[in-house]
Amino acid sequence: MALSEFQLIEKYFAGATPSRSDVALGIGDDAAVLDIAAGCQLVLSIDCSLGDVHFPLNANAEDIGYRCLAVNLSDLAAMGAEPCWITLSLTLPENNAHWLAGFSRGLAQLANQYQVALVGGDTTKGPLAIAIQAHGQVDKNSYMTRAGAKPGDKIFVSGSLGDAAAGLALYQQNKAHYNEDESALIQRYLRPSARVGLGLALTELASSCIDISDGLLADLGHITKASNCGAKVNVDSLPLSGSLRSQATAEQQQLWALSGGDDYELCFTLSAENCCAVEQLAGNLALPLQCIGEITTGQQIECYRQDGSLYPIKKMGYQHF
Amino acid sequence: MALSEFQLIEKYFAGATPSRSDVALGIGDDAAVLDIAAGCQLVLSIDCSLGDVHFPLNANAEDIGYRCLAVNLSDLAAMGAEPCWITLSLTLPENNAHWLAGFSRGLAQLANQYQVALVGGDTTKGPLAIAIQAHGQVDKNSYMTRAGAKPGDKIFVSGSLGDAAAGLALYQQNKAHYNEDESALIQRYLRPSARVGLGLALTELASSCIDISDGLLADLGHITKASNCGAKVNVDSLPLSGSLRSQATAEQQQLWALSGGDDYELCFTLSAENCCAVEQLAGNLALPLQCIGEITTGQQIECYRQDGSLYPIKKMGYQHF
Repeated sequence: MALSEFQLIEKYFAGATPSRSDVALGIGDDAAVLDIAAGCQLVLSIDCSLGDVHFPLNANAEDIGYRCLAVNLSDLAAMGAEPCWITLSLTLPENNAHWLAGFSRGLAQLANQYQVALVGGDTTKGPLAIAIQAHGQVDKNSYMTRAGAKPGDKIFVSGSLGDAAAGLALYQQNKAHYNEDESALIQRYLRPSARVGLGLALTELASSCIDISDGLLADLGHITKASNCGAKVNVDSLPLSGSLRSQATAEQQQLWALSGGDDYELCFTLSAENCCAVEQLAGNLALPLQCIGEITTGQQIECYRQDGSLYPIKKMGYQHF
Repeated sequence: MALSEFQLIEKYFAGATPSRSDVALGIGDDAAVLDIAAGCQLVLSIDCSLGDVHFPLNANAEDIGYRCLAVNLSDLAAMGAEPCWITLSLTLPENNAHWLAGFSRGLAQLANQYQVALVGGDTTKGPLAIAIQAHGQVDKNSYMTRAGAKPGDKIFVSGSLGDAAAGLALYQQNKAHYNEDESALIQRYLRPSARVGLGLALTELASSCIDISDGLLADLGHITKASNCGAKVNVDSLPLSGSLRSQATAEQQQLWALSGGDDYELCFTLSAENCCAVEQLAGNLALPLQCIGEITTGQQIECYRQDGSLYPIKKMGYQHF
């Protein structure tokens, strides 16, 4: 029997994510009603993921659910917001119980990790598309933006870069067997980490912040444009994982790290006096934080090697159109 | 030249809708930041409209922009919320400047009417799909829900019913010329009125409220289910416009009014003592408010004619899957 929109949402999603006392009214009415904490601002971001564009159509539903939410929580992390609530607009070619149960499970895994409640949704019949809006809170005026970087600020990135792009390339090979490094890279593509804890910690330190979705150079370019400055990047300092180093040529590794996208690490800038706090922060979070360059007075982003020679930029990053 | 996601949003949407002092950060960063008024709760609703499902693919972009926003504001109206901010996730088959300019213009017309600001968005390449999330505010705990109707409460609807369904049927005939009544009905489909003012006024009066999107019987069914009650509807009291009466048979008119959907009028219930306020409210708003039946103790919705005979229900309303 076909389920109506209302029943679909109730059956697969109601109760799947944590309940929160600040949800006055959740799934099931014309709209949700939420209590914003006193002294806080609301932070919100909407992102749509399409089958075959943002994830492979043959990916399993659980990974898709996880990934779509991670991408959204990453936007909130870049603002330094605490994630609280999400809404989901799901367009599906058919009412597939197995797919829906898997998708809901993957989404709920990550939602439970951060105590994020699904408070509303909408389902439609059509080509697979998943729009999630994530909502978070920040103490008033403590959010980070892309603007605010100043010449002399150091540029940092979290974790390692290029893994997701390498993982996607491997995944698309559709091999019968993947070794341990290959599997690790594929996991980095399918289940990116939203750096929520890092974002919260950076609100008191960083002069600017963005998450790396389109590729380091493209996203750093959003910071330099919004901050009206330039940047120089030392490509030999880019954090590359052991798994990535086991793949392809050194040149390909750097290309993935610079322009591959999908890493969902944070790229942020720190003034000289705040740089000293980085080591302890990395230790507290058990997350590498690597200085990869410096903000400059120019308008350009330039890449250098360790020996000071210019590194030509081949590709900025993902273009949506 | 192809525009990137960021440029697309900036070019066609930044500045198109009103600016509001409670938008701390709008379009252009990883997320938007909003100030919620003291003593207010946040009300939010997401809705996705697909080409060929929710609107005809050959509809002009301006009408599509208007309609997609109206559908969302209608959800907020049903809660009694004041609309404030929207986000937009737009999936387009191509970067079509003419279409985007028209869509933005139609959306902005309605946004300006209610001082609603577009604060964030996302564009993707794919089959035409438009997800809008609307955000509003209500005084704490003054929102309306589908629950709360009680046996003996009178059932009211605003405006007239069935116009949009008749309008869609006419639109699909693709005639070279439409007469005045036909054009009026088509406009009711393409540019529904979100009953924002009525919703705000009802927060102090109504025991339950919903907007009529799937059809009167289907949506009234959501009220009776959430309120754990039944309803009886007098089909001869349904408000039918002069334009609708000029079309088709009386039976077809009633079928459209009962099950057609897309009217985006409000259906609400009032206790006996609050019914006396309706006439003045209708006068203040210059909007007909018609009593069409009564909440009962049963679990069923039953339809009657004026002479007391049972009216068989042929179709409840739109099924999403």
